[in-house]
Amino acid sequence: MSQRPPIEYRDATAEVRAVFDDIKNSRNVEDVNNFWKYLAHDPATLKRTWESIKEVMAPGALDPVVKEMIYLAVSVSNGCGYCIASHTAAARKAGMTDAMFYEVMAVTGMANETNRLANGYRVPIDPAFER
Amino acid sequence: MSQRPPIEYRDATAEVRAVFDDIKNSRNVEDVNNFWKYLAHDPATLKRTWESIKEVMAPGALDPVVKEMIYLAVSVSNGCGYCIASHTAAARKAGMTDAMFYEVMAVTGMANETNRLANGYRVPIDPAFER
Amino acid sequence: MSQRPPIEYRDATAEVRAVFDDIKNSRNVEDVNNFWKYLAHDPATLKRTWESIKEVMAPGALDPVVKEMIYLAVSVSNGCGYCIASHTAAARKAGMTDAMFYEVMAVTGMANETNRLANGYRVPIDPAFER
Amino acid sequence: MSQRPPIEYRDATAEVRAVFDDIKNSRNVEDVNNFWKYLAHDPATLKRTWESIKEVMAPGALDPVVKEMIYLAVSVSNGCGYCIASHTAAARKAGMTDAMFYEVMAVTGMANETNRLANGYRVPIDPAFER
Amino acid sequence: MSQRPPIEYRDATAEVRAVFDDIKNSRNVEDVNNFWKYLAHDPATLKRTWESIKEVMAPGALDPVVKEMIYLAVSVSNGCGYCIASHTAAARKAGMTDAMFYEVMAVTGMANETNRLANGYRVPIDPAFER
Amino acid sequence: MSQRPPIEYRDATAEVRAVFDDIKNSRNVEDVNNFWKYLAHDPATLKRTWESIKEVMAPGALDPVVKEMIYLAVSVSNGCGYCIASHTAAARKAGMTDAMFYEVMAVTGMANETNRLANGYRVPIDPAFER
Repeated sequence: MSQRPPIEYRDATAEVRAVFDDIKNSRNVEDVNNFWKYLAHDPATLKRTWESIKEVMAPGALDPVVKEMIYLAVSVSNGCGYCIASHTAAARKAGMTDAMFYEVMAVTGMANETNRLANGYRVPIDPAFER
Repeated sequence: MSQRPPIEYRDATAEVRAVFDDIKNSRNVEDVNNFWKYLAHDPATLKRTWESIKEVMAPGALDPVVKEMIYLAVSVSNGCGYCIASHTAAARKAGMTDAMFYEVMAVTGMANETNRLANGYRVPIDPAFER
Repeated sequence: MSQRPPIEYRDATAEVRAVFDDIKNSRNVEDVNNFWKYLAHDPATLKRTWESIKEVMAPGALDPVVKEMIYLAVSVSNGCGYCIASHTAAARKAGMTDAMFYEVMAVTGMANETNRLANGYRVPIDPAFER
Repeated sequence: MSQRPPIEYRDATAEVRAVFDDIKNSRNVEDVNNFWKYLAHDPATLKRTWESIKEVMAPGALDPVVKEMIYLAVSVSNGCGYCIASHTAAARKAGMTDAMFYEVMAVTGMANETNRLANGYRVPIDPAFER
Repeated sequence: MSQRPPIEYRDATAEVRAVFDDIKNSRNVEDVNNFWKYLAHDPATLKRTWESIKEVMAPGALDPVVKEMIYLAVSVSNGCGYCIASHTAAARKAGMTDAMFYEVMAVTGMANETNRLANGYRVPIDPAFER
Repeated sequence: MSQRPPIEYRDATAEVRAVFDDIKNSRNVEDVNNFWKYLAHDPATLKRTWESIKEVMAPGALDPVVKEMIYLAVSVSNGCGYCIASHTAAARKAGMTDAMFYEVMAVTGMANETNRLANGYRVPIDPAFER
């Protein structure tokens, strides 16, 4: 088989468990998602990715729900099925209502449409937008 | 030449001027952006696109600045140069600070990275995220 | 410098000239486009790409102008600046009018929008569409 | 659950039913596809998307089957599973034969290949293609 | 049904069997993958694609395992589920170890992240990189 | 203006200079590329991105030139102009010859083509490739 099975907590090394524990504590969840159980095959990438996510998604100038909606919009634009499912759930947990979800979808759809209209009509950047 | 020049207000038909006027009034600007001047070659697409944008980007469950930041994140993800320039400007006008811009970029970057990690590790969707 | 300059006919090997000659004869043009002058650094890819293009773009069940418009729609969707410019020109040469160009753009835009709506709403395939 | 179930006609509001009725009448079908049943959660997006699709996909300078093939080529290029299935069916209904389907695929494949060759060789736009 | 079933060797024409035989001999396998059985509906595309793949993936300046890892990285970046599965298997067969797979994923992830940071910050190309 | 100018070493804070120094020492270069000078506006993203790159691109199971070629292939596939220029230069510095560059381009092109053929023909994953 070309694919490795997920690594569960009980089978994980101390190095992996330390990351799993930090994810569970930071997010106040019983278990980590499949994403982390698959990344656990490469402990360096697991640790680096989690630490980057923790830093980037923390409250800052933007509210966590806004960050999750941006994450979702990008995942929808890229067509990543796993990411759409997991970040829809994460955004809802962070406070995204149905009405907010529908607006994220509408904006994401329009952006994808007008990106291509701008490409196809070869629209030059307005001097006012230039550096 | 394979490309048509932009259509300026003074050269526009009444049908196109009506859309340009609505854009200028809605946004309180002196002139419309190049995007609209190029789309003006196809008045039906000009009108449909503007009306859709006006509806989708209006205040609703999400604040206009949040919508502009989502638009920017999608445009960055797609690599549309014109759209990145115009929606960075639009988001700033709607209230995006430097600190907010940096966070939009950081989230967009991480989403693009983890979208591919999920693809490559072929992570199955957690039952908890399923419909 | 990391980039190699284009190879002009006068500087080309016999192997490259044979491809250039076939392009010029098939398309009835004085000179080949930059695309071929850059690919000429790798004669195997030059030859394979040209022969594939010649086979795929030949009249068949679809008219050449339809094929060029599909090529353009894909290039617009991918945001390839060179390809948008060259295939807009090629499609016009094959018979694409302004009105046809505007409709290609409108369809390409809508397809990009609804692709993301389908992704984001996680719409399951209707049994009627299934294999 | 993070995902809302599709809305069937019998459970739809008058506003949604009006759109469903227009789709059924325009396309002469018994029921609407899943795409519309999911979009129905956001009646404004349902209505706007349907009206845009109806306008864009109507016969014009291009034949409906050509428009459907362009829609399919873009969906294939973007990798939208739902859209590939639904627009293959729609294009067949509009008259796309097997031979036409194979040519759409061949052109879409070549366009994706040469888009990247143009990117990677950093081919500058020929003066003849410039605005 | 809009989708055609795969073509098995026993049902194939002589033209298709000739390609299938060449694939089986070149790769020393009992049967061809689904990809080829579906392409077999269009013998011209089957033959052209196989001959291009055979030429491009042959040992050259790069080792076959390096070529397979590049193929995998592109497929992961594009989110093509079939291609990720088939080229993970092909790369493993060509010698990719678990450790090499994890590094391909890490590089692919970072490239996707920094591609968007470069887009979003609108970084101009350094003169040293210019042609 | 919506875009901030690059930050040069002489104008950088101690925090940014520490990252610039580490880049210069690790790569044995006189100055950092524009990418880092723009990211310097967000010191947290500058530091996180550099540390991730340094870890991911270090020699490991894969040779640095292989990693750079994968980075280049992904950048070409995504159409990121800055990244194509900078990673072509980086790959050459790490040992990529002209012949190797041409093969990277050929593989990247074919992968993009066959990714779409697999999408469009809706090829199901072979049981042999399944987890």
